[in-house]
Amino acid sequence: MYELGVVYRNIQRTDKETADALAALGSATVHEAMGRVGLLKPYMRPIFNGAQVSGTAVTVLLHPGDNWMMHVVAEQIQPGDIVVAAITAECTDGYFGDLLATSFQARGARALVIDAGVRDVKTLKEMNFPVWSKAISSKGTIKATLGSVNIPVVCAGMWVTPGDVIVADDDGVVCVPREKATATLEAARKREANEGEKRNKLASGVLGLDMYKMREPLAAAGLKYID
Amino acid sequence: MYELGVVYRNIQRTDKETADALAALGSATVHEAMGRVGLLKPYMRPIFNGAQVSGTAVTVLLHPGDNWMMHVVAEQIQPGDIVVAAITAECTDGYFGDLLATSFQARGARALVIDAGVRDVKTLKEMNFPVWSKAISSKGTIKATLGSVNIPVVCAGMWVTPGDVIVADDDGVVCVPREKATATLEAARKREANEGEKRNKLASGVLGLDMYKMREPLAAAGLKYID
Amino acid sequence: MYELGVVYRNIQRTDKETADALAALGSATVHEAMGRVGLLKPYMRPIFNGAQVSGTAVTVLLHPGDNWMMHVVAEQIQPGDIVVAAITAECTDGYFGDLLATSFQARGARALVIDAGVRDVKTLKEMNFPVWSKAISSKGTIKATLGSVNIPVVCAGMWVTPGDVIVADDDGVVCVPREKATATLEAARKREANEGEKRNKLASGVLGLDMYKMREPLAAAGLKYID
Amino acid sequence: MYELGVVYRNIQRTDKETADALAALGSATVHEAMGRVGLLKPYMRPIFNGAQVSGTAVTVLLHPGDNWMMHVVAEQIQPGDIVVAAITAECTDGYFGDLLATSFQARGARALVIDAGVRDVKTLKEMNFPVWSKAISSKGTIKATLGSVNIPVVCAGMWVTPGDVIVADDDGVVCVPREKATATLEAARKREANEGEKRNKLASGVLGLDMYKMREPLAAAGLKYID
Amino acid sequence: MYELGVVYRNIQRTDKETADALAALGSATVHEAMGRVGLLKPYMRPIFNGAQVSGTAVTVLLHPGDNWMMHVVAEQIQPGDIVVAAITAECTDGYFGDLLATSFQARGARALVIDAGVRDVKTLKEMNFPVWSKAISSKGTIKATLGSVNIPVVCAGMWVTPGDVIVADDDGVVCVPREKATATLEAARKREANEGEKRNKLASGVLGLDMYKMREPLAAAGLKYID
Amino acid sequence: MYELGVVYRNIQRTDKETADALAALGSATVHEAMGRVGLLKPYMRPIFNGAQVSGTAVTVLLHPGDNWMMHVVAEQIQPGDIVVAAITAECTDGYFGDLLATSFQARGARALVIDAGVRDVKTLKEMNFPVWSKAISSKGTIKATLGSVNIPVVCAGMWVTPGDVIVADDDGVVCVPREKATATLEAARKREANEGEKRNKLASGVLGLDMYKMREPLAAAGLKYID
Repeated sequence: MYELGVVYRNIQRTDKETADALAALGSATVHEAMGRVGLLKPYMRPIFNGAQVSGTAVTVLLHPGDNWMMHVVAEQIQPGDIVVAAITAECTDGYFGDLLATSFQARGARALVIDAGVRDVKTLKEMNFPVWSKAISSKGTIKATLGSVNIPVVCAGMWVTPGDVIVADDDGVVCVPREKATATLEAARKREANEGEKRNKLASGVLGLDMYKMREPLAAAGLKYID
Repeated sequence: MYELGVVYRNIQRTDKETADALAALGSATVHEAMGRVGLLKPYMRPIFNGAQVSGTAVTVLLHPGDNWMMHVVAEQIQPGDIVVAAITAECTDGYFGDLLATSFQARGARALVIDAGVRDVKTLKEMNFPVWSKAISSKGTIKATLGSVNIPVVCAGMWVTPGDVIVADDDGVVCVPREKATATLEAARKREANEGEKRNKLASGVLGLDMYKMREPLAAAGLKYID
Repeated sequence: MYELGVVYRNIQRTDKETADALAALGSATVHEAMGRVGLLKPYMRPIFNGAQVSGTAVTVLLHPGDNWMMHVVAEQIQPGDIVVAAITAECTDGYFGDLLATSFQARGARALVIDAGVRDVKTLKEMNFPVWSKAISSKGTIKATLGSVNIPVVCAGMWVTPGDVIVADDDGVVCVPREKATATLEAARKREANEGEKRNKLASGVLGLDMYKMREPLAAAGLKYID
Repeated sequence: MYELGVVYRNIQRTDKETADALAALGSATVHEAMGRVGLLKPYMRPIFNGAQVSGTAVTVLLHPGDNWMMHVVAEQIQPGDIVVAAITAECTDGYFGDLLATSFQARGARALVIDAGVRDVKTLKEMNFPVWSKAISSKGTIKATLGSVNIPVVCAGMWVTPGDVIVADDDGVVCVPREKATATLEAARKREANEGEKRNKLASGVLGLDMYKMREPLAAAGLKYID
Repeated sequence: MYELGVVYRNIQRTDKETADALAALGSATVHEAMGRVGLLKPYMRPIFNGAQVSGTAVTVLLHPGDNWMMHVVAEQIQPGDIVVAAITAECTDGYFGDLLATSFQARGARALVIDAGVRDVKTLKEMNFPVWSKAISSKGTIKATLGSVNIPVVCAGMWVTPGDVIVADDDGVVCVPREKATATLEAARKREANEGEKRNKLASGVLGLDMYKMREPLAAAGLKYID
Repeated sequence: MYELGVVYRNIQRTDKETADALAALGSATVHEAMGRVGLLKPYMRPIFNGAQVSGTAVTVLLHPGDNWMMHVVAEQIQPGDIVVAAITAECTDGYFGDLLATSFQARGARALVIDAGVRDVKTLKEMNFPVWSKAISSKGTIKATLGSVNIPVVCAGMWVTPGDVIVADDDGVVCVPREKATATLEAARKREANEGEKRNKLASGVLGLDMYKMREPLAAAGLKYID
């Protein structure tokens, strides 16, 4: 967040297999698997429902009302990347529309995560290019001031380093640091492996109180039942 | 809101026939029928569109970031209930996901109304388990501190007593106190009975100004037309 | 915003051909064509996705929690109009539902833009009557105090004069002043004419950096690439 | 929150000695003494700093933009009361100014707690009449619709029953239910009695880690120190 | 709000005597005298308490994060003016600090009203240069894009035409259109003339219920007293 | 933000002379000197006016509603430090009061910067212990879950590394990375050196338009004056 006017061309991406595999687990399971850290603020919402993606972060830092660096970051995209856009101050302007989406998609980007606004959302849905954003706004932007590409940024309250894995779906957006990706994938798979059995038990009427053996600790904590 | 660590097992539910019948009238008509009180704050939004339900409230008071009592309330659910969850301070964490929904649904719950966040919203929609919430968030919660079940709570600005009727649809969530349920149902039905005729008149081009005889009171209030 | 208790019956509408033609261009292109002014605040959202309309503004100024003037404005609607509703103080109440929508639609209104709440949104969608609003709320309103019809108003931060063109879609709502409508239509069409070619180039992998010849000005501004 | 158009003249106030004594302990200590419940939402702020009061609640429920019932509640004030004003929907209008304050003060009211706006704040400060509110606004209100006086209300997210004790200072506003007032006073005094000694220890450089014997449970929870 | 890149040098200011006289009445009384219109949104707060001013509006429209036009408007200030600054999109940046305040004060400006942020607030207080703003922020701005000076603008939700009177104090900011200034001054003085007598009555214990003869209309509306 | 349950005891603090010297320049000048980066979001406000401090950051990451780690960070404070507290999710609870302030002050801390709430603000002012926070709240917290001390954190949208310099005053809070501290101090001093002369010129009536030679670029950008 402190270096302006630079583009890092070589970033160390999380290995593709791991980055790709995290999508299937979803943001909630991945967030749990990381020990409940890594979540971008929940005001980040998908512009259409149903998309569930993961990919390696390329980052861009922009100024309020100025999307110049969006064109600079486009060149740094590699297939499988997700662009993470941070702004130096709060802004809801529409930094991104169907033309940029066409370009990003042509470069192989899977999604955009932006702590600001986007537009042309109907077309973006038709193109099946998912975006998680803070706002939707017709307001266009100027091209006047330099930001940076592929520096670490704070996006929606979370620290994102280029090459980290982004996992996003209808529940929100999680960032998995590169060095934790493999362990997180493993932990997330383990969590999920248990879920089917739990779901069956709960569906059959077994209570979480019994399945998770909570009655004793609840009583110990002083819970009282009153008839 | 003042009693912690207790679970009331016996609550006086509104009679089922009345509670069930209110769904068909919808939250707006019911709210009018009550004299324009009973509405939860409009930031409470459905996680998917189209659901329209009513049912008897079982309540749960939780602490920020702690969903332990969700498992306790599950046991108190009876078929036809709607769980109303209040938090002791503002929180957007995801207190509820597909596993708890499976359990609630198995117990006969029709919906959840929660003044906080939920997750697994894609799955909840597939399960057709409707939720009205303040937020959607992947963030999980801990299980450390006691709240209460079936005490009166303030949820999204409205007082809800266990056994009251909750009516919820795309327009929002209304609470009908048990002792007013029968009268409200009657008043709401009366309102609705008149609507068809009004709609036909308005559709034919008759103005509300004439249909409601507003021209005179408007003139009396001083309204001036300028050509 | 300063004159209460008046209804202007004769307003000068933008010529119909121009007003109608702007819909096809969409709010983002029109906003750009105007020099990036005219946008209502982005908290104004459609109650259902996919509608894209334009029309001439008839305006109404209302008081918080009071929708009396909605019936007064209904009479002033002509086919092709869009009603623009402003409130004298912040309010999220549901000023408008299916009955008023039936009346507005019968008069030929294409849409409602309201800096407050609406209700019966499921029915409004079935009627295909689009609304852009700040909130959705079951809360009804009283009929007690005079506002005005067809005076200039501030709606969601933008000045709207009766007869201006409103353009609204999933990206937001733009107001085009009557005297700028023809020039804006022309400029918007010119913008759009270029977009197909640009889109093809970007889709083929050409970068915006090259297509817009940005490399030189970026270098001049001091952008540094680091390997 | 469900009964409109009524004024309860006889309410059961907390005994005066207890109600008066809670002021000295302050809202934070009282809130802790109650088990961390009873706090109104923290957006409730004093219009001037330094006031610290307690008193028995008389309540009033008003409609948005309508302060008619403020005059009705004035008559129900007894010396030592604090007026608690709730609104049926969100509103920031200035319901209360120097004239009403003069009347309230003449009746013996100690303060106003209102989930809306007030005005004449400079004069209120000169009069030393403290107010905790959501907003400050010049906007006046009408007198058109009935609310109620001395019914239980939800004010800023908290349930307040007439006769409860309100404790308010620069940290916020707490409601102590009548039946818990004596126990709360005792518990709060006990808390405070220990504070002087603790403060001295901490001031001398003793750490909370040692004073509260936290090192062991922190280690048990897995805390690691890295040099 | 629709014309960019222009500076109107000749504006028709409200006559000085009227503009100056409104300060003494305060924003609340002036707002009432206008029929409860003209108030800027209540999020506009003074950076220090106690200032109470009125003056003629010179307006400036700026872009987010760009204060270039602040220097352009400085030249158009005449003694007795208040600068009203609007932004084309939401922004909290610090557009104005001690240097600009020195310049504005040297030109005779009495205050700044800005729908964005300011900085150097400690110094501004020492200089006794009052500002009403949406935010306080250290963040500086660039000088890159043209706005306009002395066009009509929307500031904090209210329409302000150059030459109108601005009245601002601890309660908020009101705009009085030039053509209504004389009538408003008269009406405001009449309101105030009655206030002394009312205050004395209320202070002596007379209730508003009796002084304003409200008992009968309240009973007619159906108010019930319950013992 | 990704490592839980650790305390780093050895951090590399910015050299004391530089860290101390930045206070005198203030947050606005320092922010400009850094190229307009480093500012925490402007919702961070001082609990009392007039404090102007700088110091080296020790950081703490806490969970919502849980202040256990506050006691852990106290031990890591050295004279001249400022504690920077981040929370893993949004929270307004009062994490910090007079007892912790006594302990922090005894350890030599100069201030607290916390992206949550504090309480006992009257006492904190009397102790002259400044705090910049998001909220003021009586609500206390539990001690149940481990966070971390002296890891890099995101506080109010800005990345803070232990040992960085924090500069805070009535305008807001800026973080200066350790490796940029010397250069920033120099740049800030240069900025300030010019300000006295500028202020004198502006005070004498010279316009910024002339002093900064803006007339030509404004004309080049197309600015038009209209009489």
